[in-house]
Amino acid sequence: MIVAPSELHSKISQVLASFCPSAKSNIRNLGIIFDSSHRLTCKVFKNYSCICVITELCYLNGKTFPDGVYYLTTGNGMLYQTYCDMTTAGGGWTLVASVHENSVYGRCTVGDRWSSQQGNNADLPDGDGNWSNRNTFGTVESATSDDFKNPGYYDITAEDMSVWHIPNNFPLEFWNMEAAAVLRYHTENRFLRLYGGNLFQLFKQYPVRYNVGSCGDRGPAIPIVYDHGDEDLVFKYIWFHVFRLKDEFEPGFITFRAINRERATMAICSGVKPTVGYNTEHYCIGGGGYFHPEQCGDFPSFDYDRLGGDQGWSASREMTEAAVLLFYR
Amino acid sequence: MIVAPSELHSKISQVLASFCPSAKSNIRNLGIIFDSSHRLTCKVFKNYSCICVITELCYLNGKTFPDGVYYLTTGNGMLYQTYCDMTTAGGGWTLVASVHENSVYGRCTVGDRWSSQQGNNADLPDGDGNWSNRNTFGTVESATSDDFKNPGYYDITAEDMSVWHIPNNFPLEFWNMEAAAVLRYHTENRFLRLYGGNLFQLFKQYPVRYNVGSCGDRGPAIPIVYDHGDEDLVFKYIWFHVFRLKDEFEPGFITFRAINRERATMAICSGVKPTVGYNTEHYCIGGGGYFHPEQCGDFPSFDYDRLGGDQGWSASREMTEAAVLLFYR
Amino acid sequence: MIVAPSELHSKISQVLASFCPSAKSNIRNLGIIFDSSHRLTCKVFKNYSCICVITELCYLNGKTFPDGVYYLTTGNGMLYQTYCDMTTAGGGWTLVASVHENSVYGRCTVGDRWSSQQGNNADLPDGDGNWSNRNTFGTVESATSDDFKNPGYYDITAEDMSVWHIPNNFPLEFWNMEAAAVLRYHTENRFLRLYGGNLFQLFKQYPVRYNVGSCGDRGPAIPIVYDHGDEDLVFKYIWFHVFRLKDEFEPGFITFRAINRERATMAICSGVKPTVGYNTEHYCIGGGGYFHPEQCGDFPSFDYDRLGGDQGWSASREMTEAAVLLFYR
Repeated sequence: MIVAPSELHSKISQVLASFCPSAKSNIRNLGIIFDSSHRLTCKVFKNYSCICVITELCYLNGKTFPDGVYYLTTGNGMLYQTYCDMTTAGGGWTLVASVHENSVYGRCTVGDRWSSQQGNNADLPDGDGNWSNRNTFGTVESATSDDFKNPGYYDITAEDMSVWHIPNNFPLEFWNMEAAAVLRYHTENRFLRLYGGNLFQLFKQYPVRYNVGSCGDRGPAIPIVYDHGDEDLVFKYIWFHVFRLKDEFEPGFITFRAINRERATMAICSGVKPTVGYNTEHYCIGGGGYFHPEQCGDFPSFDYDRLGGDQGWSASREMTEAAVLLFYR
Repeated sequence: MIVAPSELHSKISQVLASFCPSAKSNIRNLGIIFDSSHRLTCKVFKNYSCICVITELCYLNGKTFPDGVYYLTTGNGMLYQTYCDMTTAGGGWTLVASVHENSVYGRCTVGDRWSSQQGNNADLPDGDGNWSNRNTFGTVESATSDDFKNPGYYDITAEDMSVWHIPNNFPLEFWNMEAAAVLRYHTENRFLRLYGGNLFQLFKQYPVRYNVGSCGDRGPAIPIVYDHGDEDLVFKYIWFHVFRLKDEFEPGFITFRAINRERATMAICSGVKPTVGYNTEHYCIGGGGYFHPEQCGDFPSFDYDRLGGDQGWSASREMTEAAVLLFYR
Repeated sequence: MIVAPSELHSKISQVLASFCPSAKSNIRNLGIIFDSSHRLTCKVFKNYSCICVITELCYLNGKTFPDGVYYLTTGNGMLYQTYCDMTTAGGGWTLVASVHENSVYGRCTVGDRWSSQQGNNADLPDGDGNWSNRNTFGTVESATSDDFKNPGYYDITAEDMSVWHIPNNFPLEFWNMEAAAVLRYHTENRFLRLYGGNLFQLFKQYPVRYNVGSCGDRGPAIPIVYDHGDEDLVFKYIWFHVFRLKDEFEPGFITFRAINRERATMAICSGVKPTVGYNTEHYCIGGGGYFHPEQCGDFPSFDYDRLGGDQGWSASREMTEAAVLLFYR
């Protein structure tokens, strides 16, 4: 990508504003929208991501793009529909997945697609393996009611991620309301360039697999910019109930491939970086196929004390009962 | 909706017949087809239900509409294909779901999406929760071979329902044959207006949840009009084997959210209204997540005596081996 | 079909080459491409299979057709996307299904859609029944990562089959590379004409059901033409590890509905015909709902000795870790 030189920013801003108002707010983002490699990719793979919708259409007819459902295709031409966030930090964010806990009582049973549906089993260290394969499931409108994974997850080559925690069963038409999300943030350091351009590739480098390493062997922890909420919220509100863990993590990050004390592996720690203790099963999501017997699942042990465990190890009810929506740009 | 005044019926009938022959037979239905609110909704949400296909297209080019597969979109623009019944009582019926028993031996196992796939579990009183969430599954052509639920289930605002019991694995192209259905009927009192316009909303008011109430606390029982079969059939043929139950229900209704003696909850009693006894597990379908240990499933205990239980408590084989197709209009 | 008379072959070849280069290599196939019954079916059911894409488009505008993802519709008008092999023996092969073993440890658990997801259960002799019903699952791009079945499986009327064994998780854009497949072959005697035109019909005649017969009661064994690999490979490489079975089968065939010594039933023996012994669970795929307790699954007992069983009964790792792609023409 060619970042537009700073002396051109005001001019670019002007031109852009006249054609593509939704993208005018973030000067940094101008670079992306003018990025010739993106435009090239978009020409080859027509509408292969939400940013292509902007870059293609914006220049053609000066349209603005509401948040909502768009048609995209993979590089191979497979058609799908997903949600585009066309507003946050210049827009162009493609929803590629959601992680939804269908039952805190289920221990890697039906519906635990982001860990294992085969029961807690050390013989299946990768579980269902959906963090690093091409399976897809769910639909965009059911993304807060069940797990969702579309072809964009493995097909789009992206630079940054955005994460929305939206209450279960919340209807799509209101996801972008100010008050809808429990927490929303995005990265802006283009870290995905270092890891193959998407989570499918990142998790090939850092497998979400039982016994692949010990606590210290986590994958990258990337700084985040808050779009709804702040560090105070992450500490005091979101994870309030986890008072035993308050010294175990640092807010302001998204962390990939965490490993806990029992060598169980989780895919994403949303909003935080584990630093000591590593009881990550109480605040990280997804995973491989083997955990402590009472913890296997998509939200492995968010409900620990509400299910009769020792008090002070549960995540807040707000986080436990919200789906985690993952976007690329 | 504006019901056309009776003095206009003959004229409307004439006009309608000339443009839209498939809808001419039912004068009551004329009101719907001329309903300006429907046309308005259809303009906002293009082809959002089968009745929109009629109201939009009928006036445009005088086409007739065969029963079959049509493209529809949700209010958010998500595309899907489903079956439209364009014949019965004026047409415009959208297939939104089917309930199919994949195995009478399974006790809330894989495939029991309309009760629970998590095993029989009092900790999960709602089971899979699909009667009141936005999950979707299956395809229109497999609706008699497996469970089916499309976005119309939660997205369409409707007034009436139609129910077809079609033998398992029966091919779509013959569903509308005279002899195909075991039983077919529809409502015509527009009851859905009182319950939010669809089952998704109705079951929020009357949750399909274990232990939510006792036998008397059933939801609405709506009178039906038979399209194939009659009360005699419902009593003597369909439920023939359930001779122990012959005084427990009254035919001529569709009943929502029934509760049995063990406080287990079922979603729909098709063709009947429970009146006493409340052994509803033998003739009502769908449910929450907890039943008597031998009864959990989409057709909870239709096969009771054929599986070795006491004789006289099983539904007929015809009903047990037919999928229940649910339509809105 | 009208096979073109041999004196016309050179002329047909010339004409065909000028309009439709991808199909020019196989003179036998010319008959199919000029087949008026095929063209008729294609006119009625627009693009209902990959061969229709060729026969329709080839004459219209002389296009060539790359291997890849195409849109097709069923006779009822249901839309889907799948992979067309437009190269092998004249092209026109439609991918209709893939059989993928998600876990050799699972014994008819979640993901064993081509045998049973209901546990090993003699009360369910047909298991999930997907060899002879209209259920569909998966997507074309995930066909090497999970089970896949599209409407073409039951909807297309075909004559021949082609089978590709492609390593798990191999990306679609490279499936047709010379070195991608472990084994590839097709039939060319139009055997499907005798069995209803597709596997859906064939397996109604030869049910994939536990206890339906004994070892000798197998379905048809059809001679194959190798596209990648040969008999030597099938014997020495593919099934190398199964040295105990080397006298039990004959290479050069695809066999349908095999039955083993315990009366368990398998759907397809790929590349071979069982002749004696009938320990088919070690080299045939798919099945009904009941097997020896340690063998239930989509690849019933390919991993027997690697899972701790007696040595010499496992299929090669190459075959065990490859998805089986099934094509019709």
